[in-house]
Amino acid sequence: MSLIVVGSMAFDAIETPFGKSDKIIGGAATYIAWSASNFVKPIYQISVVGGDFPTDELNALANRGVELEGVQIKKDEKSFFWSGKYHLDMNSRDTLDTQLNVLANFQPTVPPSYQQAEFLMLGNLVPAVQLQVIKQLEKRPRLIVMDTMNFWMETAMDDLAEVLKHVDVLMVNDSEARQLSAEYSLVKAARSIMKMGPKYLVIKKGEHGALLFHDDQVFFAPALPLEDVFDPTGAGDTFAGGFIGHIAKTKDISFENMKTAIIVGSAMASFCVEKFGTTRLQEISKADIDQRIREFVQLVNFDIELG
Amino acid sequence: MSLIVVGSMAFDAIETPFGKSDKIIGGAATYIAWSASNFVKPIYQISVVGGDFPTDELNALANRGVELEGVQIKKDEKSFFWSGKYHLDMNSRDTLDTQLNVLANFQPTVPPSYQQAEFLMLGNLVPAVQLQVIKQLEKRPRLIVMDTMNFWMETAMDDLAEVLKHVDVLMVNDSEARQLSAEYSLVKAARSIMKMGPKYLVIKKGEHGALLFHDDQVFFAPALPLEDVFDPTGAGDTFAGGFIGHIAKTKDISFENMKTAIIVGSAMASFCVEKFGTTRLQEISKADIDQRIREFVQLVNFDIELG
Repeated sequence: MSLIVVGSMAFDAIETPFGKSDKIIGGAATYIAWSASNFVKPIYQISVVGGDFPTDELNALANRGVELEGVQIKKDEKSFFWSGKYHLDMNSRDTLDTQLNVLANFQPTVPPSYQQAEFLMLGNLVPAVQLQVIKQLEKRPRLIVMDTMNFWMETAMDDLAEVLKHVDVLMVNDSEARQLSAEYSLVKAARSIMKMGPKYLVIKKGEHGALLFHDDQVFFAPALPLEDVFDPTGAGDTFAGGFIGHIAKTKDISFENMKTAIIVGSAMASFCVEKFGTTRLQEISKADIDQRIREFVQLVNFDIELG
Repeated sequence: MSLIVVGSMAFDAIETPFGKSDKIIGGAATYIAWSASNFVKPIYQISVVGGDFPTDELNALANRGVELEGVQIKKDEKSFFWSGKYHLDMNSRDTLDTQLNVLANFQPTVPPSYQQAEFLMLGNLVPAVQLQVIKQLEKRPRLIVMDTMNFWMETAMDDLAEVLKHVDVLMVNDSEARQLSAEYSLVKAARSIMKMGPKYLVIKKGEHGALLFHDDQVFFAPALPLEDVFDPTGAGDTFAGGFIGHIAKTKDISFENMKTAIIVGSAMASFCVEKFGTTRLQEISKADIDQRIREFVQLVNFDIELG
């Protein structure tokens, strides 16, 4: 049950139609760790923060079973900062401010104690940094899952293409899948992307659910219809954390089990959006998660007899 | 197994990113009849066409088991005509031309032979006409399903509100559900709309699937991810035809069976979009439909064990 998580740990400032946050804790690896730690411990975290990152937050993660030896603390620098404003549909947003700070020159180091990890979750980050982590591992993990975004397709496509050759599962949203493949049909996009390296592709569609592709197989998981989506920030990372957390817990990398992992990820994401930042993720219990997964089963369960 | 279908029978001219059709046969009741006739016969059709509507098309429907006594033929008038152009995403379109023609003064008459029907499918049409059909029925059908659209919310909301009080199931797309309820959250929209009359609400989301609401229950059916969507015209009507066709065939109006009906409707709609107009619907066999339904089962099927 050993899982390495790579990604940003950062500050976010978020505006939604329902409210505005102060500078709160965010970052892909933060959300992934909070989500995955419901299923697997320890989590071997690789990230970088500035001297401004609250010790309390690091302690909270450590208490949760997140190993922080691979998290560099640059005392005289500032943490990555992102600020964004969501539109009414909550599926689209404008970036108001991005300050790379410590991320600008991040050189990850995999601690010796992290070696031999069976699972690797590459959260959204500079592709060259994701690749450095892969290269430093003495033994290839059983499963490498990678999240990325349109920004890297536009600014670091060569590096991104190289990382893709080394990963098993890619996670992107629908517009990113279209951008990466230059195909509008998601079926064609998936086929094209699976020729770039990943044998599995997860396409996240926000409130419209998620698709899992492998060879000619496809699986669809809905998103839970929610009364209110309060803050979608981190939902994709939380989804990734639930996905890899379930797989690391079960140690089963079959397509069948990935389907289950997609449902677990969807359940975790449905909690994330209920409050600002990681607030809701820090509150929930195993009973809450099981109950939500039962709601997903109800949501898609049907019987049909073919004559 | 008696089903009345009400709606337009018309000409369409369609432009999509993949091609442009001549003036072809369309209309809500046409698609519904082609779709529902896979499951139930006869279908008691109520509509109006002009003298320009091809006899061949009427004969094709009659051969299919569609009773046409309730279809008025106005020899000296022209059939309803709609022309539209789809955007690349195929989920949005611009109307290029609308000619009401025979629909402008349509006064439906329910033939005596149609009385005692158990099921009524009100395809998208002027709400006042939908209501006239309900009022002419001597015995209330076991289930009344109604499709409508944003156009009537803008031009005939009072009539629409009146029809809503008489129907059991309403079908609209997601933007129409939001418009009708003035709620952005579909969960809240559903709750609001179910206070207007319908006990069941189906929200069609095109390539993102469909939701069925009833009391506090919700069911989600995906759309089949397709290589190409060639022409989405009539997909919603075809969905409605599959839905009511399955219910009329099984005579089971439980929530559980409506879930199955949603899957059947989704399968039928996935055929509709593969070719222009009703072409594909006229080609498919029971074996094709069963195979497609199996693909839906595969698409959403997963196993999970909660500890």
